[in-house]
Amino acid sequence: MQSPELRTAESRVDVRRAGPGDAAVVRTMVNELAAEDGAVQEVGVPTERWAAMLGRDDVVVLIAARDGQPVGYVSAVRKLHLWDGADILALDDLYVREASRNAGVGRLLMTELARWAAPQDLLIRWEMHEDNTAAQAFYGRLGATLRTKVVAAWTAAAQRAALEA
Amino acid sequence: MQSPELRTAESRVDVRRAGPGDAAVVRTMVNELAAEDGAVQEVGVPTERWAAMLGRDDVVVLIAARDGQPVGYVSAVRKLHLWDGADILALDDLYVREASRNAGVGRLLMTELARWAAPQDLLIRWEMHEDNTAAQAFYGRLGATLRTKVVAAWTAAAQRAALEA
Repeated sequence: MQSPELRTAESRVDVRRAGPGDAAVVRTMVNELAAEDGAVQEVGVPTERWAAMLGRDDVVVLIAARDGQPVGYVSAVRKLHLWDGADILALDDLYVREASRNAGVGRLLMTELARWAAPQDLLIRWEMHEDNTAAQAFYGRLGATLRTKVVAAWTAAAQRAALEA
Repeated sequence: MQSPELRTAESRVDVRRAGPGDAAVVRTMVNELAAEDGAVQEVGVPTERWAAMLGRDDVVVLIAARDGQPVGYVSAVRKLHLWDGADILALDDLYVREASRNAGVGRLLMTELARWAAPQDLLIRWEMHEDNTAAQAFYGRLGATLRTKVVAAWTAAAQRAALEA
């Protein structure tokens, strides 16, 4: 990947793919995002596990840094889609640290993800909350197609209960 | 997996995991489902590709057969979930052929999928159309949690357009 940059009057943002050595900073930013979402309890992945995941070919995390300081990331995982018989890219998170928002960093992360995915013809898919209209407008401007769906989650505990019913 | 059975007055339904040798019948049933959904053009996966996918460890397809004749299937793919640092199971399809509906086959396929997933503590996730209230009621009875979300899809063509913008 090229090292794209976004210049402002005072500083420069670079985007690069994260590797195992970025585990600590990725984990820190994931925890920041979880804290903003009120979902800290959901994120208990230790740094060593992040290092292992960031070394995988099917995991793509891009880090945006302003003057060398990480200001955001986008994360995604390749996944086989049976109907196409081909992989798609399931986007997990797009996060920009508060001080760097509304400066084009989110858009830069998404277009850099596209620069990686488009040559491989990878469809990118993700979900957002129904009431997050700002995100919907942002992604619509990027050219994503948005549809309201019902998403089901069946936990292992609920599965066991159904087996015993 | 055990070979579970569902007895009716006249016949018996068995569920088993599909392998590469089941590629043709799985492909036929996927095409039937696509035709019912009005989405035939989306399914162009050849039998050989199905055979390769059905040989993968991360692909789980269960086939229900009544007196040896395939009457339905459920399909899912394991996928890493970064926030958990663990795999989840992304369900693709649950399909029962028309003549065998409303006889418990769909429930049997789902509980057999749970019998495979629960011991591995795999969360199962999937999406359905907002207006498919029958499916929502069915999955709710199984113990799945349902949430309305906005799902975004960003095609490679739209990604390229965003890169050129």
